[in-house]
Amino acid sequence: MRVLGIDPGLRNMGWGVIEAQGSRLSHIANGICHSEGVELAERLLSLHDQLTDIVARFAPDTAAVEQAFVNKDAVGTLKLGQARGIALLVPAQAGIPIGEYAPNKVKKTVVGVGHAAKVQVDHMVKMQLPGVVINGPDAADALAIAICHAHYVRAPGATLRVKGAA
Amino acid sequence: MRVLGIDPGLRNMGWGVIEAQGSRLSHIANGICHSEGVELAERLLSLHDQLTDIVARFAPDTAAVEQAFVNKDAVGTLKLGQARGIALLVPAQAGIPIGEYAPNKVKKTVVGVGHAAKVQVDHMVKMQLPGVVINGPDAADALAIAICHAHYVRAPGATLRVKGAA
Repeated sequence: MRVLGIDPGLRNMGWGVIEAQGSRLSHIANGICHSEGVELAERLLSLHDQLTDIVARFAPDTAAVEQAFVNKDAVGTLKLGQARGIALLVPAQAGIPIGEYAPNKVKKTVVGVGHAAKVQVDHMVKMQLPGVVINGPDAADALAIAICHAHYVRAPGATLRVKGAA
Repeated sequence: MRVLGIDPGLRNMGWGVIEAQGSRLSHIANGICHSEGVELAERLLSLHDQLTDIVARFAPDTAAVEQAFVNKDAVGTLKLGQARGIALLVPAQAGIPIGEYAPNKVKKTVVGVGHAAKVQVDHMVKMQLPGVVINGPDAADALAIAICHAHYVRAPGATLRVKGAA
């Protein structure tokens, strides 16, 4: 099963693709979509088109998107929401089931503690995906989300809750 | 010049299309996209596909999207952001220039005061678009946004700042 993880952001959108065979994981690819353009609509279109290419290229069976960390910075939350709308739309357009996980759930699943430091997450991602070369922090987060999702979808009785229309 | 106004929302996305010839405005169509589906990604896809149909059907020359009213409700801001990402993406995908206006600017332009009541906005929309039948409050807001945008793009020396890639 091929899993795409997405760490949404308006400026930088991290992505990572892994292959999960039973409990064995392997790395396929990871990177960061940088939004091009000056105006918001252009940047969203740029992210949409880059993510669409990634989905077409790696043909994931399922995708997972990090749930937004909602804080008091309303302007930041709005920007993140706009990028997150694109991150959810693209897999749905491809008819791929989508999981959503809170940041703490990703950390808890990958590292074992919900408030793990970034360096611990990086370390565990590298441990679980031998030989991986990570293209920046947002890509590391995206791989962690993919690992988390692989863990839950292979659990006995798991069903993928979120389906886009094929 | 045909103008599409969009009032973004995750549950209900208002839209309105008007024709502007010099200072003369006329109503073309208005309505509300109701997002279908249970999961967020499905709902965003549903809004995307409905808006895409509207753009294809009415072929607007330009579009305008209301800027989000950012408040202390972070969860609501995030939801709105996700819907707003779709509202901006769809015209950008069609290569249509997009304007963005704060709610108070729309009211100020359409009614004359920035804190006009909803009933005043409705009244002025009906005054400026004779014979219009408005399909609900979100559609009224979308028509007001279209009227506001028509006002600014026809102003001498106005340029459309936001362009999606054609």
